Amino acid sequence: MSYTEISGGVTASRGFLAGSAYCGIKASNPDRPDIALIYSTEPCAAAGTFTTNRVKAAPVRVSMMHVRSSDVRAIIANAGNANACTGIKGIENAKRMASTTADALGLKDRQVLVCSTGRIGVQLPIDKIKTTIAGLPAACSERGSLAAANAIMTSDTRTKEIAVEVDLDGTLVRIGGIAKGAGMIDPNMATMLCFITTDAAIDKKLLQRALSVSVEQSFNRITIDGDMSTNDTVLMLANGQAGNKPLRYGTPAFKDFQRSLDHITKHLARMIVEDGEGVTKFIEVHVHGGATYSDARRAAEAVANSNLVKCAWFGGDPNWGRLMDAVGYSGAKMREELVDIYYDGVLGVKGGMASKTPFTKLQEIVSGRRFSICIDLHMGSAEYSVFTTDLSVDYVKLNMGE
Amino acid sequence: MSYTEISGGVTASRGFLAGSAYCGIKASNPDRPDIALIYSTEPCAAAGTFTTNRVKAAPVRVSMMHVRSSDVRAIIANAGNANACTGIKGIENAKRMASTTADALGLKDRQVLVCSTGRIGVQLPIDKIKTTIAGLPAACSERGSLAAANAIMTSDTRTKEIAVEVDLDGTLVRIGGIAKGAGMIDPNMATMLCFITTDAAIDKKLLQRALSVSVEQSFNRITIDGDMSTNDTVLMLANGQAGNKPLRYGTPAFKDFQRSLDHITKHLARMIVEDGEGVTKFIEVHVHGGATYSDARRAAEAVANSNLVKCAWFGGDPNWGRLMDAVGYSGAKMREELVDIYYDGVLGVKGGMASKTPFTKLQEIVSGRRFSICIDLHMGSAEYSVFTTDLSVDYVKLNMGE
Repeated sequence: MSYTEISGGVTASRGFLAGSAYCGIKASNPDRPDIALIYSTEPCAAAGTFTTNRVKAAPVRVSMMHVRSSDVRAIIANAGNANACTGIKGIENAKRMASTTADALGLKDRQVLVCSTGRIGVQLPIDKIKTTIAGLPAACSERGSLAAANAIMTSDTRTKEIAVEVDLDGTLVRIGGIAKGAGMIDPNMATMLCFITTDAAIDKKLLQRALSVSVEQSFNRITIDGDMSTNDTVLMLANGQAGNKPLRYGTPAFKDFQRSLDHITKHLARMIVEDGEGVTKFIEVHVHGGATYSDARRAAEAVANSNLVKCAWFGGDPNWGRLMDAVGYSGAKMREELVDIYYDGVLGVKGGMASKTPFTKLQEIVSGRRFSICIDLHMGSAEYSVFTTDLSVDYVKLNMGE
Repeated sequence: MSYTEISGGVTASRGFLAGSAYCGIKASNPDRPDIALIYSTEPCAAAGTFTTNRVKAAPVRVSMMHVRSSDVRAIIANAGNANACTGIKGIENAKRMASTTADALGLKDRQVLVCSTGRIGVQLPIDKIKTTIAGLPAACSERGSLAAANAIMTSDTRTKEIAVEVDLDGTLVRIGGIAKGAGMIDPNMATMLCFITTDAAIDKKLLQRALSVSVEQSFNRITIDGDMSTNDTVLMLANGQAGNKPLRYGTPAFKDFQRSLDHITKHLARMIVEDGEGVTKFIEVHVHGGATYSDARRAAEAVANSNLVKCAWFGGDPNWGRLMDAVGYSGAKMREELVDIYYDGVLGVKGGMASKTPFTKLQEIVSGRRFSICIDLHMGSAEYSVFTTDLSVDYVKLNMGE
C-alpha cells in the first residue's frame, strides 16, 4: 500500500478547520453537541453523492444545488432533526442554515453545503440554530475533527473518523473523513452522513468521479436493514493545499489517490455497519460465478437483506437452507445443483446440498463475531460483495419507537 | 353474498375424503400427526400454483408435472421435512411418496400430487413414510378435513380450514380448503401450503384460471418477512359431484364460483398472516392514486416489507416518516408533496407533511391489534393492497435457530 493512516480526521488535510457547538436540537439529549462545521480557508473543488430516495430531505435538495458551485468552502450539519417532510418551510430553513454559515465565514450562500440527520417531519428550531452557527467559526480549529464527528452522531455509540497520507509523485497528500451511521434509536432516524476532505489538487469533475466510484465500492455495499434514508449524503472537498501537480485521470498518482480514498470510504462504511443498531455480528457476503454483475449483485443483496438469514446468524445457526432460498428468489440466474457455499472458506454446501463438513464446524464459524459467506453460482465470472449484519432482538427493541 | 360458510373444510365437497397419520418425521415433535392424505373417489380436474423461487423442492417439481394429468385424484403431504435441496434422491423420494399413495388407492402415479414442508437439506425417512402411507387410506373419511389440516402444521398454532356452499344456477356447489402458514419456529421452515377441493363441474383450464386469479388476490398479497419459500404450493381438485352444469367463463354462475373461491383463499391467507410467527398485529396496507398498477404495488410492498416500519408498528409508533421513506425508495413514481396517509381512515399525513391530527390519536390506532394504512399517491388511479404484520422481538427469537 502506498498510503499510511494518520490521525486528524477531516482536519488532517491542510487548510481545513472543524468544530462543533451545542444547540439543544436533540430532544432526548439536549446537552450533547449537535451542530458541526467543517471549512477550508482556501478555495475548494466539491463533490457529493446523495440518497436516491424520491423523498429527499430539504438539506439534500439544497446541497445538491450548492455542490455544483465552483468554489465550495464549508459544510454545516446538525443532528437531532432531519428537516425531511417539512415542505417549503423546510427548504427555507435549510437555505438559512447555509446563509447564516456563509455570513459567519464571509462566503456566498452557494459556497456552503448543508446536512441534517434526525427526526423526520418536524421543523428545525431555526432561530436557535442561527444563533449557534454565528458563534461556530470561533469554535473551529485544525484539531476539530473529532468534535465535528461527535456532533453529527445520533444513535451511534462511537465517533467515526480516519485519515491517510499518500505520496503522489513526491508530494505528500492527505485525505480525511468523518461519518455517522444508520443507527435509529430515536424514532424517525435513519441517516448515513460522511464528510471527506483532501488537500490534493484535483479538479471538480475528476473529484466527483473518484468519489462516485469510491462510494459505489463502500457505502453502497453496506446494508443493515435494507431501508434507504431520505438524508443519506457523502460530501467531499479538495483544496489543493498539498501543492501536488493537479491529478489527471488514469495516471499512477490518480490511481494511488483513488486507492487511498477507497480506504477511507471502506473503513468508514465498515465502522458504520459495526456500530449498527443492535448489531452483534459483521458478515461479508461474497457472490462469485454470477452469469452477470447484476446476477451476482441480486444474489448477494437478497442474502444480505433476508430477515430469516439474519435472524439465523444472530442465533449462531448456519442455516444454509435459508441462504439457498434467498439466492433462489433473488432473481439471479442460478441452478440449484451448481451452488457451492463456503463459511469462512469452509465448504458448507456442495452442488446445492449439504457438504460433508460437520454441521458443528459451521456452527462454530457462525457463532463468531465476524465471518464471511462465499457463494459460488458457477454460472459465469461476475462477482459482488456486500457487508451486512445479523438481525437481533435489540434491533427490534431499538426500533419499536416511543 | 351468494355463498354461505359451512363446516367440513376440504371434505365439505362431496366425494372427497381426508385423513392423517403419525410417521415420526418431526424430530422435535415425533408424536404429532405429520402426514395427510386428501383424495376424491371420482375423477377430478386439477390446478396448482407453485413457488416462483428458482430453488424448488423435489415435491414441487414432481407436482408441477403430475398436476398436468387429466384425472388427478389425490394429494399426499408431509410436515417436518421439506425435501428441498436434496438432489436426485429427493426427486426419487417425492416420486415414491406419490407412487406409494397411488398403489394404496389403486391409481396411477401421475394421479397423485405431493407436498412437503419442514426442514431443508435433509433426506426424507422414505421407508417409514411408505409404511405409513400404505395404511393411510383406511384413516380417511368424509369428516377428515381437520385431521389433515392438523397434520400439515409446522409452527402454526391453529389449524386453518374453511368451506362454503354456493347456489350456481339452482345447484348447491361446495368449495373447501385447508392451509398451513409461513411460520418458522423450527429452523429451515418457511412454507405456505393450501389444498382446496370443490364438487363443482369445471374443466381443468378454467379451474386453473380461477385458481390463479384467486391466488393473485390472496396468497400473493400477504407478506410476513418477505422471504419466499422453496415449497409454497396451492392445489385444487374439482370432481363435479355437485352435478351442476359445467361452468363456463364469463357466466354469472362462474362469477359466483370465483367469488366463493376468492372468499376461501382470502380467508385462509388472512389466517396465515394472523398466525404468523411472533405476530402481534395485522395490518392492511392499501395504496391508491398510483400512476400505474406497478407503482401502487411497489409502494405497498415496500411499506409492508420495511423492517423499520414493522418495528415501529410493533411498538405502537405511527412513525409516518418511515412510511414516507419506504414509499420514497420503493421505485414507485411519487411526489412527496402530494402524498396523503390515513390511519384507519384518519388523516395522518397531508401533502407529505404532518397533518393536524393529534399524534396521540394516531398512536391510539397503531396500538390496536388490527388497523389499516391507506396511502394516496395522487398520481393516477391505480391501487394495490397487501396484508402484513409487525416485526416483533418474538419473530427474531423464533427464527434465530437452534
